[in-house]
Amino acid sequence: MKNVAVIGYGVVGSGTVELFEKNRESISHKVERDCDIKYIVDLRDFPDSPFADKMIKDFSVVLNDDEIEVVAEVIGGIEPAYTYTKQALERGKSVVTSNKELVANKGAELLKIAHENNCNYLFEASVGGGIPIIRPLNKCLAGNAIEQISGILNGTTNFILTKMIREQLDFDSALKLAQELGYAEKDPTADIEGHDACRKICILGSLAYGKHIYPQNVHCSGISAITLDDVAYAESAGYAIKLIGSVKPAENGRVSAIVCPRFVSKSNMLSTVDGVYNAISVTGDGVGDVLFYGQGAGKLPTASAVVGDIIDCLKHKNRSLMISWNDCDDENYIVKYKTVKTSIYVRINAENADELKASISEMFGKLTYIERKNRPDDELAFITPTMVESEIDVKLAELSHSARIESKIRLL
Amino acid sequence: MKNVAVIGYGVVGSGTVELFEKNRESISHKVERDCDIKYIVDLRDFPDSPFADKMIKDFSVVLNDDEIEVVAEVIGGIEPAYTYTKQALERGKSVVTSNKELVANKGAELLKIAHENNCNYLFEASVGGGIPIIRPLNKCLAGNAIEQISGILNGTTNFILTKMIREQLDFDSALKLAQELGYAEKDPTADIEGHDACRKICILGSLAYGKHIYPQNVHCSGISAITLDDVAYAESAGYAIKLIGSVKPAENGRVSAIVCPRFVSKSNMLSTVDGVYNAISVTGDGVGDVLFYGQGAGKLPTASAVVGDIIDCLKHKNRSLMISWNDCDDENYIVKYKTVKTSIYVRINAENADELKASISEMFGKLTYIERKNRPDDELAFITPTMVESEIDVKLAELSHSARIESKIRLL
Repeated sequence: MKNVAVIGYGVVGSGTVELFEKNRESISHKVERDCDIKYIVDLRDFPDSPFADKMIKDFSVVLNDDEIEVVAEVIGGIEPAYTYTKQALERGKSVVTSNKELVANKGAELLKIAHENNCNYLFEASVGGGIPIIRPLNKCLAGNAIEQISGILNGTTNFILTKMIREQLDFDSALKLAQELGYAEKDPTADIEGHDACRKICILGSLAYGKHIYPQNVHCSGISAITLDDVAYAESAGYAIKLIGSVKPAENGRVSAIVCPRFVSKSNMLSTVDGVYNAISVTGDGVGDVLFYGQGAGKLPTASAVVGDIIDCLKHKNRSLMISWNDCDDENYIVKYKTVKTSIYVRINAENADELKASISEMFGKLTYIERKNRPDDELAFITPTMVESEIDVKLAELSHSARIESKIRLL
Repeated sequence: MKNVAVIGYGVVGSGTVELFEKNRESISHKVERDCDIKYIVDLRDFPDSPFADKMIKDFSVVLNDDEIEVVAEVIGGIEPAYTYTKQALERGKSVVTSNKELVANKGAELLKIAHENNCNYLFEASVGGGIPIIRPLNKCLAGNAIEQISGILNGTTNFILTKMIREQLDFDSALKLAQELGYAEKDPTADIEGHDACRKICILGSLAYGKHIYPQNVHCSGISAITLDDVAYAESAGYAIKLIGSVKPAENGRVSAIVCPRFVSKSNMLSTVDGVYNAISVTGDGVGDVLFYGQGAGKLPTASAVVGDIIDCLKHKNRSLMISWNDCDDENYIVKYKTVKTSIYVRINAENADELKASISEMFGKLTYIERKNRPDDELAFITPTMVESEIDVKLAELSHSARIESKIRLL
């Protein structure tokens, strides 16, 4: 039975075909019937591919073929992925995807269409590449109230930060190296400014709290302003700087969600996650802390998640598998990040900076000064107590009359 | 609708009831209908329990109540759990459990009965407590050929080893402390001799490779012989000693499975797992390495997994959810562990031990001597090259004519 179509023959698409064909016998055994990829849809020509006989250019062939039960959408981006996905689901064909942009922006709608048509929209590959996280959160941890999710959700930025921490490369050099190694794109904006991580934390938060979290409502800051001075202060105070996406419940049924660099304590497993690896920490009221770790991107790791979803859809035809989430048109559902309590590392610059200590201490109450090797006389760094962020801002605005605020990084 | 029965009101049972009742509203929302626990079956009396009205002593009441869709068997041990589980499944009631002993010994049979009766036998809680591992392995990673699974599967032994490594407590003192803190039982044999970890690796291996692995066919050695000298050598050579259960494919469709203490390189995430925490590392041909980490035992963490399974069964009534495994009567399915290639840390005792170096080096070819602070003159430690274990044994038998073999620990 040739019942699967793969849409898009890029990195993830070709990995999906490769892994599926390699393990097709065991996959058919698991599904309890013969399974195979019938079509690969791509506008480009791949005459030398071993799968050239499966290549077609017209998606409507897939739509109109009743044998096709599952469509793997691995094109990426909103269009034409969105239209194709809707069309397939409306015909009762399940869709599986690695397309975080589409899930983060249209997930609630597509899940609803899948549910109405008695098929599935699965997206294990959209967060953490091959790391199992969607299904564990959706099923294994379903008995918990989720108290928070924090994750290193982008391998590119974690690679750059790791090079800054371990080899004292500055940001620009580390980025250049990442580009040379193929870990960062020519235009690295989506990664280094945190937009990619933002889509992923939106998906996890939507799943955990049952209402769609839209990326445009989530505050997002990246890592391009981080300097080796910040890295040195973090190191000496027992932290590692990581780009963290996090989401947790707030008052009145709302949620707090943010993507930003963080000082992560070395006693936290997330601080040990190096290089292009990802890790997601989930805290539940029953389970406590659990952590999921692995390669967050790449051809075969991502394909692993796509193929796992394909198997689940084939095995459970016409059965809704996932706990779904609802759309959300309340723009106040995400609390304003400045109203959330936090503690912040601050680095300032001022002539004879140490002389400011008394007034800073008075300003903040109990706070912690931190050191680095060869700290210049005109530099001072401290960690504020935990306060509502806007209150910290007021104090830093006051401080900015006598010092330049060089850096602010939240603690996890 | 009161459709769940909990059998056994011990630690896990009371945690299951507590977590289910606490989150009952959101659970009912996820299942898309009202759900509640109707019975708690236990021979003991709990007159002061807030759930006294649910308590009954006679399991047949559960069996004969058509309203009950899911039975949570959290008694532990083989009987009466085995009989109760069979009876429930035969009536089409799904059973979820934390009972690793029962799953490891009767899993294939019970899965078959569940399948025949169009219901489910789920056991997420049987391995790693609340850590999602069964479903991820069964579903998310189903597209992979699993190249190996290695895990810290027992919190008691990991607590003891952590105390030995971090605080230089000897084994007996660390065990005593674990008992005082309630982490180890009065009779700690099942934990410290590795039997508990063995059941868990059997379950994971059965799931990954499709045939039942029986605990009695798996070589199992514990941690009671490990000394602070071994800990010191491991530390100085860049390893941590951990009790590891592992399983991987061998030639001709067979598997290799073993539970034993291991030198784990500090570059391996498993070496950083401390205290009562568990972690399981899975390598797939697509996904590469993924790791799952969390509390491997305890009332609410284990209940988290039980409740997750209850929800899945309620949501998918009369639908077979899991990829099953088959029974296996081939006693050669598990390869003899002495025929597997390995590298071993060896500590020996002999007068003027250093003088033996030349002959040991000649014996093994390229090998690594390792040091510890204040190594006595009559002690020597080395790591063998990777060889078939029985060949290492032959060489060590030869060596035993001139030295006492004090310790042997395999590398991971």
